[in-house]
Amino acid sequence: MNPTEARQLIRAGQWTGPTAGLVEGYVQTNLVVLPRDWAFDFLLFCHRNPKPCPVLEVTETGSAVPVRLAPDADLRRDLPRYRLYHQGELVAEVTDVSSDWRSDLVSFLLGCSFTFERALLSAGVPVRHLELSRNVPMYITNMPCVPAGRFAGPLVVSMRPIPDSLVVRAVQVTARYPRVHGAPIHIGDPRRIGIADLSHPDFGDPVPMRENETPVFWACGVTTQVALSRAKPAFAITHAPGHMFITDVRDEQVADS
Amino acid sequence: MNPTEARQLIRAGQWTGPTAGLVEGYVQTNLVVLPRDWAFDFLLFCHRNPKPCPVLEVTETGSAVPVRLAPDADLRRDLPRYRLYHQGELVAEVTDVSSDWRSDLVSFLLGCSFTFERALLSAGVPVRHLELSRNVPMYITNMPCVPAGRFAGPLVVSMRPIPDSLVVRAVQVTARYPRVHGAPIHIGDPRRIGIADLSHPDFGDPVPMRENETPVFWACGVTTQVALSRAKPAFAITHAPGHMFITDVRDEQVADS
Repeated sequence: MNPTEARQLIRAGQWTGPTAGLVEGYVQTNLVVLPRDWAFDFLLFCHRNPKPCPVLEVTETGSAVPVRLAPDADLRRDLPRYRLYHQGELVAEVTDVSSDWRSDLVSFLLGCSFTFERALLSAGVPVRHLELSRNVPMYITNMPCVPAGRFAGPLVVSMRPIPDSLVVRAVQVTARYPRVHGAPIHIGDPRRIGIADLSHPDFGDPVPMRENETPVFWACGVTTQVALSRAKPAFAITHAPGHMFITDVRDEQVADS
Repeated sequence: MNPTEARQLIRAGQWTGPTAGLVEGYVQTNLVVLPRDWAFDFLLFCHRNPKPCPVLEVTETGSAVPVRLAPDADLRRDLPRYRLYHQGELVAEVTDVSSDWRSDLVSFLLGCSFTFERALLSAGVPVRHLELSRNVPMYITNMPCVPAGRFAGPLVVSMRPIPDSLVVRAVQVTARYPRVHGAPIHIGDPRRIGIADLSHPDFGDPVPMRENETPVFWACGVTTQVALSRAKPAFAITHAPGHMFITDVRDEQVADS
């Protein structure tokens, strides 16, 4: 399947599940939709915190068309599952937000880790949660994001256990992809960044650490969800976890060089 | 002189000239100040056009303190010369904008080419306009920027004649500095980007091309000034050309790696 075919399947309501592996080799993104009144604060929050919040595209106000990432797409219908928030509270999970759309909405598409995980695998670096068909473990750290206007909150990270002999390689490989979270933010002792127990992630599933492996931590897009839940904008739409937007852009196109 | 001393001299009204060479080794920036109502469109314009408009810092609304680039600075008084615009028209050139300040203003600090010119010189690449103590020649191209809201306009470039044997080196050196315009946008024939005659720049001074030299073109911060003059915001403040903001950040700190 190519990205257009996948989006048509989703738009027709024939695919409502997670998007990992649905199309191979194309960038998938997080979605955050906010009223225009909140858009500057959010864009500034992303600009000040580019590792957790790498902005790949922002639509014009009112438009649901991501003209650069997928010009034939409709962001109101082409994700398999959305979450609707009122005043920061989750009020519904739906498969189409056409009837919730408003002319003052701005859509933000943010890079996600699927792209760099493919790059890790290609470089011979194993990715534990993929081996086990689990969700990646995610943790709230004690590292504050740089606040911006009404947005603030802690950095959320994802963790992958990496064989000691491949840790440097993992840094090198992911550093090439700053637009999908890039190089790790921490290597080693989880307590240094405020994580008490790796076996109890704040989001996702725990994964086992094997001998001669080091925990490596990358900035995670869930950071924006925590910031949103604290800022409590009057209205917001996001993708449902794992139910991403599939773009026409190949993974390699967002590499640095 | 260090950056704090230079800013104090400027704040006291004892330096009202251009800032090139005033302090060595520190990043200097362009300044654009806009009402909050225009801030989202402008930040989005910069995000969509990062080569001409590399955003280094955005202040909180109403604040004149760039907390990351120079926490003891006052953007209303620490630049030697400012330009004030009403409805896109230049109405005054002043050395202090304290009395023009408003609580709804947002300040944008954008990278400038001084940093990569130092890097070129350090790498043994000559910079003609510096040798001749002239302003760099700048040209309006036929390449449109990606519009954003009310902002649109052509890409403006600066040109430096580079000895043929050093062109690749010049690309490599400046590519390390994406936050101060980065790698060139064009090498060679000026007509390919809509420039009819190198001896008649749209801004700055012409410089001679010598034998065995190639014109190399970099994205230029004047792009924002052209976009501003077309968008005609009700109110805007910018630095006067060449009269930049001096930060506490060393040139090397904005290099990529």
